[in-house]
Amino acid sequence: MKEGNQAELDQKIRQLEVVVRAKNYHSGLISFVHPHVLCETLCYPEKVYSEEELKVELKKILLLLDENHSSITYTVDQFFGHLGKVRELLMEDARFIAENDPAASSAEEVAMVYPGFFAIATYRIAHLLYVAGVPLIPRIFSELAHSKTGIDINPGAHIGQGFFIDHGTGIVIGETTIIGNNVKIYQGVTLGALSVHKADAEVKRHPTIEDDVTIYAGATILGGDTVVGRESIVGGNVWLTESVPPRTKIFNNMESKIVYCKNICK
Amino acid sequence: MKEGNQAELDQKIRQLEVVVRAKNYHSGLISFVHPHVLCETLCYPEKVYSEEELKVELKKILLLLDENHSSITYTVDQFFGHLGKVRELLMEDARFIAENDPAASSAEEVAMVYPGFFAIATYRIAHLLYVAGVPLIPRIFSELAHSKTGIDINPGAHIGQGFFIDHGTGIVIGETTIIGNNVKIYQGVTLGALSVHKADAEVKRHPTIEDDVTIYAGATILGGDTVVGRESIVGGNVWLTESVPPRTKIFNNMESKIVYCKNICK
Amino acid sequence: MKEGNQAELDQKIRQLEVVVRAKNYHSGLISFVHPHVLCETLCYPEKVYSEEELKVELKKILLLLDENHSSITYTVDQFFGHLGKVRELLMEDARFIAENDPAASSAEEVAMVYPGFFAIATYRIAHLLYVAGVPLIPRIFSELAHSKTGIDINPGAHIGQGFFIDHGTGIVIGETTIIGNNVKIYQGVTLGALSVHKADAEVKRHPTIEDDVTIYAGATILGGDTVVGRESIVGGNVWLTESVPPRTKIFNNMESKIVYCKNICK
Repeated sequence: MKEGNQAELDQKIRQLEVVVRAKNYHSGLISFVHPHVLCETLCYPEKVYSEEELKVELKKILLLLDENHSSITYTVDQFFGHLGKVRELLMEDARFIAENDPAASSAEEVAMVYPGFFAIATYRIAHLLYVAGVPLIPRIFSELAHSKTGIDINPGAHIGQGFFIDHGTGIVIGETTIIGNNVKIYQGVTLGALSVHKADAEVKRHPTIEDDVTIYAGATILGGDTVVGRESIVGGNVWLTESVPPRTKIFNNMESKIVYCKNICK
Repeated sequence: MKEGNQAELDQKIRQLEVVVRAKNYHSGLISFVHPHVLCETLCYPEKVYSEEELKVELKKILLLLDENHSSITYTVDQFFGHLGKVRELLMEDARFIAENDPAASSAEEVAMVYPGFFAIATYRIAHLLYVAGVPLIPRIFSELAHSKTGIDINPGAHIGQGFFIDHGTGIVIGETTIIGNNVKIYQGVTLGALSVHKADAEVKRHPTIEDDVTIYAGATILGGDTVVGRESIVGGNVWLTESVPPRTKIFNNMESKIVYCKNICK
Repeated sequence: MKEGNQAELDQKIRQLEVVVRAKNYHSGLISFVHPHVLCETLCYPEKVYSEEELKVELKKILLLLDENHSSITYTVDQFFGHLGKVRELLMEDARFIAENDPAASSAEEVAMVYPGFFAIATYRIAHLLYVAGVPLIPRIFSELAHSKTGIDINPGAHIGQGFFIDHGTGIVIGETTIIGNNVKIYQGVTLGALSVHKADAEVKRHPTIEDDVTIYAGATILGGDTVVGRESIVGGNVWLTESVPPRTKIFNNMESKIVYCKNICK
């Protein structure tokens, strides 16, 4: 088995540098952007970065991705111009989670240990890079959070303010999903496509969730035309492929078959 | 965007120290408490600690959390007084898993590579700290295991001896769950609350599972009054919100719609 | 609580060395075997290994596992004799994923950031070690990938060429599963056993999936006699415990109960 030629090795080394830098940058940004806590439970900032240092590093990463990139300074300025807004959104997220989870004692505890908060923080930063047109890095960020938390939020999704995720393992939020304000989502929820075809890459394939909706564990909501109206509650394990109006409550209708075993159940 | 004032930075640095120490302590404790193996597949003890070193380190962490803590020595002694019992429980857990999993070759292999065993070991230690009244650290431990395994066991849950988890990804066991002896649980099982309201923080919100119950993959059992009687079997994907008596077998009743495609299925 | 005697400590240290070496070896092999990218998003090769170095290291690991092993050279040669085939399979996997996922921009991006690709690469290497009769190491590899991705593929499973996993969290593929060519699987799919008994260790307990089948998120397919015929589509959340012929489309029949709330949904 051959080990690849020199050009291939050079490309490998360049890609390695991008990914290593992107990983450290992810940790550095999350620590920088959240006012009260470091992301130490799930990420490892090597040091505390200043805004100026973060700008210089982002320029280096963008150059590695595309050495002919003509608008790097514009992209970096656009990104940092919106980071303050992300900071405010994350303070609101932590407050909203602490207010609604019976098991949470404070917004600070939420920010320190909740995997859902970590995934949201990563999404908000990755989305900003996605909007700024940065390739690859948003997806590296989202897959880092996915690996740590089991929560897979595509950087292209639109999510409003006050977003609550509890437990979170198995959540998938697709690229063209739109989520309003004060939405609560539990583990195993899929906001996905009805079916998957490469030709649909440019189409809205994932649902719209309006303000103040709660979606309990294991619910599946599919399709680009599916809208869950505001203030609705989607129960656990519900399967939903059509729109429902505001203030709707949807339960699954699962029934079980019960057998009383004579001696030992087998 | 401002980077925060000095007081905020000091708090960040203190929190960082707590979390870094808690992470190392988690690895050190798991290595210490299990007799046959190190936790090297999923955690990274920097060194092998003696009991005396572990006591000193726990005191340091408790002081960082609350420098006015009046009963640190009592808390530490209470915790280490019960660690021997945890050691015995974990030997029983590994034996029980190896005896029941067709894919397992020995209790030693289980302890070395099974994520379910790692999550149980973390839970048993975190629960002991929770009972001793230690803040934050139990939740940091449980979220470390959650991140590594996808298994989310709240440190407040009560779990008897001989607990078997296989595969495990997506399991959620809530704060007020009670689980008996020799219980087996598979991936994607939720033992959760019927609905979530902040006002219910002090109420038993999660179910009771009696001795010798098996719960197959993807089953959801909800509610603080729900009791699954001993020796029952809960089938895969069952949705259960009411109690069942001992020796009950419950299946899901899911039916599918089948279409035979003429040429290509789309 | 005693800390164990000298023999126990020696065993711990030996096991620690096996696991640490196995972890580094996993990263080294994946980097070596895939032509275009390093596995840096999810694993950490300490350096780039040559084939000769990888052979020497595998011999060391096999000696640590069994110092009386009589056929180490044969095992190592058998393994490396097939690695070239794994390289080809992985190029085909990355191409197949990029061709079918609307959210993917290139095979290179897939190889760099897709957790499904990482899990497949790990499986293909672990399966080769499993077939060569190497103990423990295949399972360590598969649990490393499981921890990073939430995807649990037993090294004993048989999987054809062109295997697509998207999102992936919660997927379980059992030890005796057989999967054909060009199969697509989404998050939360279980290919499992109908029930679990230690006595069935030598029996085919898991299903057979023929060529060109797509299995959408959350579907559960159980039983060693269950065959999903080629070109079939298994819909999301389907529960399947019997065979279906080629070109079958199976939907779940889940219905929900809908309530329109007067004012606020509770």
